[in-house]
Amino acid sequence: MSTAATRLRIDRSRLIGRLDALAEIGAIDGGGVCRLALTEADGAGRDLVVSWMRDLGLRIDVDGVGNVVGTWPADRLDPPVMTGSHIDTVATGGRYDGNLGVLAGLEVLETVIGSGTRTEHPLAVGFFTNEEGSRFAPDMLGSLVFAGGLPLEEALDVVAIDGAVLGEELTRVGYVGTMPCPARPPRAFVELHIEQGPVLEAEHVQIGAVTGVQGISWHELELRGQSNHAGTTPMHLRHDAGHVAAAIAVAVRELTKTTPGLVGTVGRVELQPDLVNVVAARATVTVDLRHADDDVLTGAEGRLLASAAELAAAEGVELTTRTMARFEPVAFDPDVVALVESVATEHGLSVRRITSGAGHDAQMLSRVCPAGMVFTPSVRGISHNPAEHTEPDDLEAGANVLLDVLLRLAGVEEAL
Amino acid sequence: MSTAATRLRIDRSRLIGRLDALAEIGAIDGGGVCRLALTEADGAGRDLVVSWMRDLGLRIDVDGVGNVVGTWPADRLDPPVMTGSHIDTVATGGRYDGNLGVLAGLEVLETVIGSGTRTEHPLAVGFFTNEEGSRFAPDMLGSLVFAGGLPLEEALDVVAIDGAVLGEELTRVGYVGTMPCPARPPRAFVELHIEQGPVLEAEHVQIGAVTGVQGISWHELELRGQSNHAGTTPMHLRHDAGHVAAAIAVAVRELTKTTPGLVGTVGRVELQPDLVNVVAARATVTVDLRHADDDVLTGAEGRLLASAAELAAAEGVELTTRTMARFEPVAFDPDVVALVESVATEHGLSVRRITSGAGHDAQMLSRVCPAGMVFTPSVRGISHNPAEHTEPDDLEAGANVLLDVLLRLAGVEEAL
Repeated sequence: MSTAATRLRIDRSRLIGRLDALAEIGAIDGGGVCRLALTEADGAGRDLVVSWMRDLGLRIDVDGVGNVVGTWPADRLDPPVMTGSHIDTVATGGRYDGNLGVLAGLEVLETVIGSGTRTEHPLAVGFFTNEEGSRFAPDMLGSLVFAGGLPLEEALDVVAIDGAVLGEELTRVGYVGTMPCPARPPRAFVELHIEQGPVLEAEHVQIGAVTGVQGISWHELELRGQSNHAGTTPMHLRHDAGHVAAAIAVAVRELTKTTPGLVGTVGRVELQPDLVNVVAARATVTVDLRHADDDVLTGAEGRLLASAAELAAAEGVELTTRTMARFEPVAFDPDVVALVESVATEHGLSVRRITSGAGHDAQMLSRVCPAGMVFTPSVRGISHNPAEHTEPDDLEAGANVLLDVLLRLAGVEEAL
Repeated sequence: MSTAATRLRIDRSRLIGRLDALAEIGAIDGGGVCRLALTEADGAGRDLVVSWMRDLGLRIDVDGVGNVVGTWPADRLDPPVMTGSHIDTVATGGRYDGNLGVLAGLEVLETVIGSGTRTEHPLAVGFFTNEEGSRFAPDMLGSLVFAGGLPLEEALDVVAIDGAVLGEELTRVGYVGTMPCPARPPRAFVELHIEQGPVLEAEHVQIGAVTGVQGISWHELELRGQSNHAGTTPMHLRHDAGHVAAAIAVAVRELTKTTPGLVGTVGRVELQPDLVNVVAARATVTVDLRHADDDVLTGAEGRLLASAAELAAAEGVELTTRTMARFEPVAFDPDVVALVESVATEHGLSVRRITSGAGHDAQMLSRVCPAGMVFTPSVRGISHNPAEHTEPDDLEAGANVLLDVLLRLAGVEEAL
């Protein structure tokens, strides 16, 4: 493995040209994109990306769940250093999100191939089926199957929110392949992605060396009190489910203040009967807690539930809790994280280590090979929205870091 | 005016028999009643009560807004000592509520007439149109017109939630009368009503001497923050409208703790987009504040809005507020309040002064004559619900207090 950054640089206008061309498929108002997984639009997007892969002379492999991998040199069957992401979007998605990781990977391969550079290990770029989870559950389904976390047969039987069956939709768009699932693990996997959060922009940092993905804990808390007249019921005789719900939301915020790195959100609240002049008989709130350390997250969950129980008891309100989702944190390979950091520094870019608050395909790949991610800033942290934006300079810088990280991992035999 | 309680007592089974008979009209599951104002069911209920008034030989006067007054002796045109309430209900109402005040009044008149007692001033029992406000706004409309607080023409033009026009509905059920509105003020007005709250039951008190009606303040507070990803957005970069809404609800509770007699309710909450993993961009909450003293209520409103503004500013969230409703407190006639208290005591009943948390026809009558109310306990404080219940002993005790209060005010010429 060479130790210095190469002089190779990606072609910014070619990268942006491909991002724009792909964004035309499923385009929606405001510059956004709607390409829900395995819809007609997703099929057309896949065809376009595959045509670019073919133009580059990559070997194209499609597996049983529709994951597509383009490998260079086409005749090399040993494990590649791989990059990629996904091209499906949410219903009101932006043009970067997963597309950037796929098209920057393609751009890296075109740059390397065009330069005549040869690497010790093959290079590959892929896109995974149904990362968003907006049409089929769970999200990151394709990379999960790829990494052996979900049997292919189960994945093919998944029913979409619109009633369609995943396996049938895959056949319809023409992406049932013969490459086995789970796949043979790549040598390493590195994904470029927009941050989808405001941290890099707020701190004027150009590159995020992603250390891992936060663990996620979702709870639903249901409170049953007593419906009462807002005028005739003295405060001390109330069993106000709505009040306890509010107090829990405030307690969640307090919990984040006493637990460094913890984020906590009460995003849903429902009161019944939900009338101005009636004390709420029932209230339901959801609590989303995330932390990069599983022990800390478990501790925070315990304190949340204890404090909710205390608040409910004080009001004479019955509390029931339900775990809606629980994912352990993922730690990326320390060497890959350090490599991203050092390459960014060599490129003269500001860099910081950062934990991803959202899930990504790279976390599934980290089950089977050394994996990591490169983040570029998101303007105002906006994502999953037509207003999602990353500055061209940042797109270029991120793709160039990806280029040299992949080359280091693949081993440059003949650097230019 | 005589000073001792009479020996007259109402006929409990006759009173309960009439309550049961009236509850059959518009009966719903669970023992409740649905007789929305000026519907067919309300018309049938009116006809039944009027037939009982006729049986007693009362003079029946109907005014232009459908208020009905039965007076005894029928030939007396000087201002009567009046009682009554309303017989319209909410959509899922109970069998007591306004019905008790009307039928206990009828029972008092039947008792007095049957005993041969003669009073210095005539006695009257009435029922007022559309007290509940469930079909036509505002509530207490009939008594408001009766007391001169709303011109008859405006009242007749009010459009129901189902699109019907009040004046047309009044014609349809046959209750357009010729007695002028506003009416000539009665000599005094006393209304018997169930408490609709839990205080009397909780304190094991049989009679409430109602001192007045709380002032009501309704505000809607709208918060505009920024929608953000619950995982990728650090706490210090959030503008969480939902958090501010919760903090305001907790502040309302604190406000009630530092303001004796204040009740405060956040009964409605709406978040947008209302998703588990998205920081709420917008939140709307309503705040219902009530107090018997207008200065205290005004002060509490000021502290609420100041504290909401402070909480919103701390989170970088925009706050807009809107006054939805504001009613000043009503104070009943001190002599009537004292009379209710002393009659209850003479009857050997436990009694306490109490502020009404709900609105009643008596508060409109208090604009034009000395007025007051007698409360009987509500089991578990439940009202506007089929489960609304008051024990027969309490119904009887309340009606007997009403009897002697009315007789004191009317002046007994020949006590038995």
